[in-house]
Amino acid sequence: MIWDHDDDKPREECGIVGVFNHPEASLLVALGLHALQHRGQEACGITTYDGEKFHNERHMGLVGESFGGDLTSRLPGSAAIGHNRYSTAGKPAMRNIQPIFADLANTGFALAHNGNLTNAVALRKELINKGAIFQSTMDTEVVLQLVARSGRRLMRERVMEALQAVEGGYAFVGLTNKKLIGARDPVGLRPLVLGKIGQGWVLASETCALDMIGAEFIREIENGEVVIISEDGVESYRAFPERPESPCLFEYVYFARPDSVVQGRSVYQVRRRMGHQLARENPADVDVIVPVPDSGVPAALGFSEQSGVPFQLGIIRSHYVGRTFIEPTQLGRQKSISKKHSPNRSVLEGKRVLLVDDSIVRGNTSKKIVQMVRDAGAKEVHLRSASPPIVNPDFYGIDMPTKGELLASNNSLEQMRNFLNVETLGFLSVDGLYASIGVKRDMSMPQFSDHCFTGCYPTRLVDQMQEEGGKDRQLSLLD
Amino acid sequence: MIWDHDDDKPREECGIVGVFNHPEASLLVALGLHALQHRGQEACGITTYDGEKFHNERHMGLVGESFGGDLTSRLPGSAAIGHNRYSTAGKPAMRNIQPIFADLANTGFALAHNGNLTNAVALRKELINKGAIFQSTMDTEVVLQLVARSGRRLMRERVMEALQAVEGGYAFVGLTNKKLIGARDPVGLRPLVLGKIGQGWVLASETCALDMIGAEFIREIENGEVVIISEDGVESYRAFPERPESPCLFEYVYFARPDSVVQGRSVYQVRRRMGHQLARENPADVDVIVPVPDSGVPAALGFSEQSGVPFQLGIIRSHYVGRTFIEPTQLGRQKSISKKHSPNRSVLEGKRVLLVDDSIVRGNTSKKIVQMVRDAGAKEVHLRSASPPIVNPDFYGIDMPTKGELLASNNSLEQMRNFLNVETLGFLSVDGLYASIGVKRDMSMPQFSDHCFTGCYPTRLVDQMQEEGGKDRQLSLLD
Amino acid sequence: MIWDHDDDKPREECGIVGVFNHPEASLLVALGLHALQHRGQEACGITTYDGEKFHNERHMGLVGESFGGDLTSRLPGSAAIGHNRYSTAGKPAMRNIQPIFADLANTGFALAHNGNLTNAVALRKELINKGAIFQSTMDTEVVLQLVARSGRRLMRERVMEALQAVEGGYAFVGLTNKKLIGARDPVGLRPLVLGKIGQGWVLASETCALDMIGAEFIREIENGEVVIISEDGVESYRAFPERPESPCLFEYVYFARPDSVVQGRSVYQVRRRMGHQLARENPADVDVIVPVPDSGVPAALGFSEQSGVPFQLGIIRSHYVGRTFIEPTQLGRQKSISKKHSPNRSVLEGKRVLLVDDSIVRGNTSKKIVQMVRDAGAKEVHLRSASPPIVNPDFYGIDMPTKGELLASNNSLEQMRNFLNVETLGFLSVDGLYASIGVKRDMSMPQFSDHCFTGCYPTRLVDQMQEEGGKDRQLSLLD
Amino acid sequence: MIWDHDDDKPREECGIVGVFNHPEASLLVALGLHALQHRGQEACGITTYDGEKFHNERHMGLVGESFGGDLTSRLPGSAAIGHNRYSTAGKPAMRNIQPIFADLANTGFALAHNGNLTNAVALRKELINKGAIFQSTMDTEVVLQLVARSGRRLMRERVMEALQAVEGGYAFVGLTNKKLIGARDPVGLRPLVLGKIGQGWVLASETCALDMIGAEFIREIENGEVVIISEDGVESYRAFPERPESPCLFEYVYFARPDSVVQGRSVYQVRRRMGHQLARENPADVDVIVPVPDSGVPAALGFSEQSGVPFQLGIIRSHYVGRTFIEPTQLGRQKSISKKHSPNRSVLEGKRVLLVDDSIVRGNTSKKIVQMVRDAGAKEVHLRSASPPIVNPDFYGIDMPTKGELLASNNSLEQMRNFLNVETLGFLSVDGLYASIGVKRDMSMPQFSDHCFTGCYPTRLVDQMQEEGGKDRQLSLLD
Repeated sequence: MIWDHDDDKPREECGIVGVFNHPEASLLVALGLHALQHRGQEACGITTYDGEKFHNERHMGLVGESFGGDLTSRLPGSAAIGHNRYSTAGKPAMRNIQPIFADLANTGFALAHNGNLTNAVALRKELINKGAIFQSTMDTEVVLQLVARSGRRLMRERVMEALQAVEGGYAFVGLTNKKLIGARDPVGLRPLVLGKIGQGWVLASETCALDMIGAEFIREIENGEVVIISEDGVESYRAFPERPESPCLFEYVYFARPDSVVQGRSVYQVRRRMGHQLARENPADVDVIVPVPDSGVPAALGFSEQSGVPFQLGIIRSHYVGRTFIEPTQLGRQKSISKKHSPNRSVLEGKRVLLVDDSIVRGNTSKKIVQMVRDAGAKEVHLRSASPPIVNPDFYGIDMPTKGELLASNNSLEQMRNFLNVETLGFLSVDGLYASIGVKRDMSMPQFSDHCFTGCYPTRLVDQMQEEGGKDRQLSLLD
Repeated sequence: MIWDHDDDKPREECGIVGVFNHPEASLLVALGLHALQHRGQEACGITTYDGEKFHNERHMGLVGESFGGDLTSRLPGSAAIGHNRYSTAGKPAMRNIQPIFADLANTGFALAHNGNLTNAVALRKELINKGAIFQSTMDTEVVLQLVARSGRRLMRERVMEALQAVEGGYAFVGLTNKKLIGARDPVGLRPLVLGKIGQGWVLASETCALDMIGAEFIREIENGEVVIISEDGVESYRAFPERPESPCLFEYVYFARPDSVVQGRSVYQVRRRMGHQLARENPADVDVIVPVPDSGVPAALGFSEQSGVPFQLGIIRSHYVGRTFIEPTQLGRQKSISKKHSPNRSVLEGKRVLLVDDSIVRGNTSKKIVQMVRDAGAKEVHLRSASPPIVNPDFYGIDMPTKGELLASNNSLEQMRNFLNVETLGFLSVDGLYASIGVKRDMSMPQFSDHCFTGCYPTRLVDQMQEEGGKDRQLSLLD
Repeated sequence: MIWDHDDDKPREECGIVGVFNHPEASLLVALGLHALQHRGQEACGITTYDGEKFHNERHMGLVGESFGGDLTSRLPGSAAIGHNRYSTAGKPAMRNIQPIFADLANTGFALAHNGNLTNAVALRKELINKGAIFQSTMDTEVVLQLVARSGRRLMRERVMEALQAVEGGYAFVGLTNKKLIGARDPVGLRPLVLGKIGQGWVLASETCALDMIGAEFIREIENGEVVIISEDGVESYRAFPERPESPCLFEYVYFARPDSVVQGRSVYQVRRRMGHQLARENPADVDVIVPVPDSGVPAALGFSEQSGVPFQLGIIRSHYVGRTFIEPTQLGRQKSISKKHSPNRSVLEGKRVLLVDDSIVRGNTSKKIVQMVRDAGAKEVHLRSASPPIVNPDFYGIDMPTKGELLASNNSLEQMRNFLNVETLGFLSVDGLYASIGVKRDMSMPQFSDHCFTGCYPTRLVDQMQEEGGKDRQLSLLD
Repeated sequence: MIWDHDDDKPREECGIVGVFNHPEASLLVALGLHALQHRGQEACGITTYDGEKFHNERHMGLVGESFGGDLTSRLPGSAAIGHNRYSTAGKPAMRNIQPIFADLANTGFALAHNGNLTNAVALRKELINKGAIFQSTMDTEVVLQLVARSGRRLMRERVMEALQAVEGGYAFVGLTNKKLIGARDPVGLRPLVLGKIGQGWVLASETCALDMIGAEFIREIENGEVVIISEDGVESYRAFPERPESPCLFEYVYFARPDSVVQGRSVYQVRRRMGHQLARENPADVDVIVPVPDSGVPAALGFSEQSGVPFQLGIIRSHYVGRTFIEPTQLGRQKSISKKHSPNRSVLEGKRVLLVDDSIVRGNTSKKIVQMVRDAGAKEVHLRSASPPIVNPDFYGIDMPTKGELLASNNSLEQMRNFLNVETLGFLSVDGLYASIGVKRDMSMPQFSDHCFTGCYPTRLVDQMQEEGGKDRQLSLLD
């Protein structure tokens, strides 16, 4: 994927971590969130329970800027959950930072969530009609309200009752005065793994968070599973009838950190094989393979290995781009200017260049980068996407343009090639993507949620069926 | 009343203002809150409705520091409510600043409140058991939750149902997308007045807020009355069976601004008459009458008028005391040092001085001021309190020490005189206070809530009957 | 003086304090500055020396907000100086907060200053031509640069050489690694007093600062005197030929706190006598005497005592006005609205009212207050100024309008009366002012600097003679 | 170079940019500084001149966070200079952010500087003795003071006189009301290049800044050259007798961005050739080449190309590390934990791994990374440094440990190998480094400043010869 403006990139809600029975729970959660920072950079929050009281901090900004100092005295307790939020358009409200919290009859209950519910708007209306007062505009709060209103006695029953009411893709971590709770949606769209550190337990979105804190990977939470972690250990419950899992392909394509392991597979090696496969499906007669950094690097290495064409860093990425930077539009754009990407002329000049990116969404940034490479003297520019064409939006927590804005949704390959202004353009095939993961695609029963590439959505889309969905009358309140 | 530390002084929750049908509603509310700043200096908030959306701002600090600039574009709309909060102990949370807000089925609902409910803890527990999630630790939110959960269709019915469930002393202003709502408790403990400006309506805690914005005083909201102000004008409803009003005497004694008019009486003139009466009840053979500034000035002037002894500013008050100032304890207190009060030696030296204060609560600051006046050379120091002895705490929104800390609750007059180290000490009598107001006291049916002086509480004290009342398990959350 | 906008009021640069040989020097300086807060509310700073290093803090805002917490560990040392700055027009720069500092060959040198130099612009140009680099736009820095460049060896010689080069009205406190230095201008325009606390010494603008910290008043620093306070005690030097002192009358009229003592006279009693004299010079047939609070109170009390007409608080002043408040102009001014002053109708309605203010500068606020009093129902409004007509600007540190904006400079008494819309208007005479102080005015050799009333300036006005004076090319730099 | 803590890394003062005759000068400077962000991330500042006034902003933090919004109206003018500062130990003072400024007789003069003077302390003392007052503790200010005090009339003469007085390595940009000035030290230790954009001129530390703003590279400023850019174009002067240039080798090794061109050579390609040379000098029998990201990547790619061993991303670097992050020491370090580097187990497990880094300074972080790679399952770990052993500190603006802390200065190769716990360890030779650049090393007349590797310093080290150098008595002042 190629981007410059922050809004030209798929982003996921969010990274989550939970720790139970460790004397430095908040510190472990903070380090885990730091390892998951790529899943959300806008805001972060941690809630702990110290045996008597719940403690909470929520901040705008990065984990490393928010949770320094003597964390275990600011957020004491041996149980904690935390959350990273991705950057949304518009001014974010403090009240929309997770974890969120409710005071129930016998315990407090904190909740953090990655994903998106597809019937949150409908449920919210129903709950408001029953007298519920919402603190935030987050769909996560629907789950909190359902848990609070459940007539069931046991917390696991309350949670399962709530999950049975919601539709969508999600992973949750919850915290009470006695338990750490984890859950994944019925098909396992959003990830959640279980680890162990000393006598303590860890839940996290990706294995890289376990690695960061030195925890041992135990297993993935299964689709539709609810785990209740308490002093009695880990108990597993099923909120739904069993069905095959169908995780989201974008974890392999873009979201997961390359050093994470998903379903037993190294994400880095999957991406490298995507490069191999891409080179087989869409070869090119070029002088140099150049990744669009950083996300295109593993596939570009794979392409180079398969094709034998040298891999070089023809584009340099700056990691210092702030949020409120000068709009380059001010400069009149007489040249293609990017704050994130700079051409490495010595690699590009006079060469036939093949660019490898992880995906192409709107295509605007790709177009700019192509032009930048041409301006730097490339003789030819070819472009390869390590993901198949994205033709449908996601509704499970990936922040993506509408169908009308997706380049591949509205253009033929040749139209795209013209728009992007490249000599050749190629995408990995859906079958090829499955093959890179090591799975033979079964069209009758897809092993993965591939709706962005195929249109096959794994859940009902309640809110999306209703035009007025998502409108919120009082959004400006409480900022 | 005499104080130095901010916590040695009775303070009320809070000042409230509402405006309906004026193009600069937020500006009028801000100016009204500024006029009511003496009722609460810690925080302030304003919510407006502009015909489409609700807007809200809440700030720590003074109105004049929080609501500058182009207010009507920041907080647009022709209807608005606002709130001043007094300073509480401990670090205050943003979530405890009013107005608070709920998204109901057909409208948003904002609420601001002055006073205190005496069954809030019990109701809160009951509501949590039914699945309500509280955003704050304020008793105001109980009313919001009750309104949200009411099965009634009309807003006025919802509000009245909620008020019938609560006990205590309060005045409310509420805002929906069509209405401004005002209400006072059954006996009228906390004040609320109605005014008119152009085609618009104003509700405010005191008449001085009407004067500040140039609104005409119409009438006081009656005890137990609910007013619904809409495009159809002002409608009046009664939530309770009729009973005589019994407003809190402390509005006359301390809270209300001297230029306000309460029940048709000038507060300044009532206080001056309290000085006359005090001089009659407790005369003294002295050279000079010195007020403890600023609140003791009207009674001291009255005392001087009645006694013929000259009034002089023997104590100078600094108005620049910040919240986080140097603790004078650091200086070792070899002398009586105050950051707020300084002796004017030229008035005090060699004189027999009579100090007049509005009230005596703990007595610690009075003791310091007496010593300061002695150190400045006074030959004798006499002290008069323009209120009767305070022997019982208040539970209707006045922030006051417990019974055990009230000086008059635990000491004879002679013990107090010794503790305060004055030649003579005198208090206004309860009958004398009634007389100064112009009312002959009827012991069988008190015309005012005089519980602080007499122990006759006008409502049930549900929470206070239960030891555990007020404890809150998750207070640290969401800060 | 009558005002509403902050810029309609004379203000002085500034309040200064110095402490030598006290273990809590910074704390004493902070408390002293707090007592002098009326002399400047915009910013404050403290510099200390702890035997090894200089420490410094400078803040926007009040002393009580800036210097809380554990001050003696933040600003350690047994010697300290501090400064309050008044509010100037425009956004103030941190670099313009005092004390300022220079690293000299053998010591650091910190300097704080009250007053204004009348040849600072000329000297600044001369120094820049010699290669001096200025850190600020303050005239104080001219003195710092002159001290730094002096060829003399002893600090007292350096200071005296610098003072001999400057013209104007000033009081200084300076701090080196061994000495606390104090100085007053040749005629003693700006005040400075010496006090003692335990084994330590204190310099301060007014005696009220000594009272606040429990220091004993020793004497005033004399006009033209330089004191060097060291471990050897207080040494006195004279930088100029002896001449009679001629302090600024405005200390009595407006600046000094009423509990301060100037030249052995209680400021409160002088102001009270100004009220007596005013009543004798300009009597009025009225029902009530009303002060414009707070500064008009002592003179109004005096007027009441002399005339026998009752004194009442007919105007209530709010002490909560923030710096950035809502402009009342936004309300269309259909009525006279003030954020600072409110009418106390019960005192004014139907009465013949005499207002007493300390002075009248532009007259705009006076005009508004008169109208406010009329709107509150007064039958007649009379106005008395406890100072003589102000017909000339000050150039010694009083922030005052230009001659063209001074009401009395451009209008006859009758014109002023018409403009202010009062039944009668009266000013104290210059002779009457001298008499209130207890001095028979000697026209041939004025005992006070009375230039604002008479036009007799006690020093040369070098910069004021040159049109371009005061213009500064790089004022926006380094903000 | 391998690091984890920010202080385990050589860093340079700083990045500088100047623009003359462009309508959006401040915007170009901000973008140029953004491109040079790798040279300093702690603070940044920009000064402009708009034909009438100088404007200035200085901020802590990144360029992209500091200079957003409508920059050309905040900092108007067609001429501007700017500066990035690197992160120093301790709390930095705002007064130490550049550009610094002086008001001279006929113009303002702003100055920004990259490098370090080796006689700044001595000159500072001398200037203070002559009465100069320093605003900051930066050596840059010595130049400013020398320019201000110069008796010469022309600005270029003043600047050259100042440069002739100082010793060290530096590049300057200066701004007056008519001119943009650039200068490099006599041997050209610190870099400065000249570019052209439209009718305007640009000076910048590296060519990547020219690329970012779309400016054309013209030439490098020569060693000892002073350029005066005005409406008359670019004039060149020489402040010193001609001598061969001798730029710092660290620009090639570490500082310069890979897409920059230094002395006509692509930095990326030089580093790649360093990898080739390193592989020839220090081959290894391994399975995979792994760079220490990001700075080790080009040399690792070169090593892979030369050796034929595959290049893989075996270490993942997080770009989200904040300044105040949790100290990992809190976790008890039962495992090697890094906030910046994570092992990519799928690449490392069971493999013989060769790590390539750009340099080794203290060695502490290298040691941690080696352990991390072992913990991830590597069978063998070999380490190669693309720079020769660093045995001497730098005094020309590179922030580097003292000689005692430099690993290579105090240990034999075998001792280092043991300390770092690697199977084999190898450094590029000094001759090999010269060869990679394409220069045959001339021992009698070194073409580069290679003092860190050889001890041959190209200038006098005045301050370093004096023990007390660098001590500053009043460092805490004015923070």
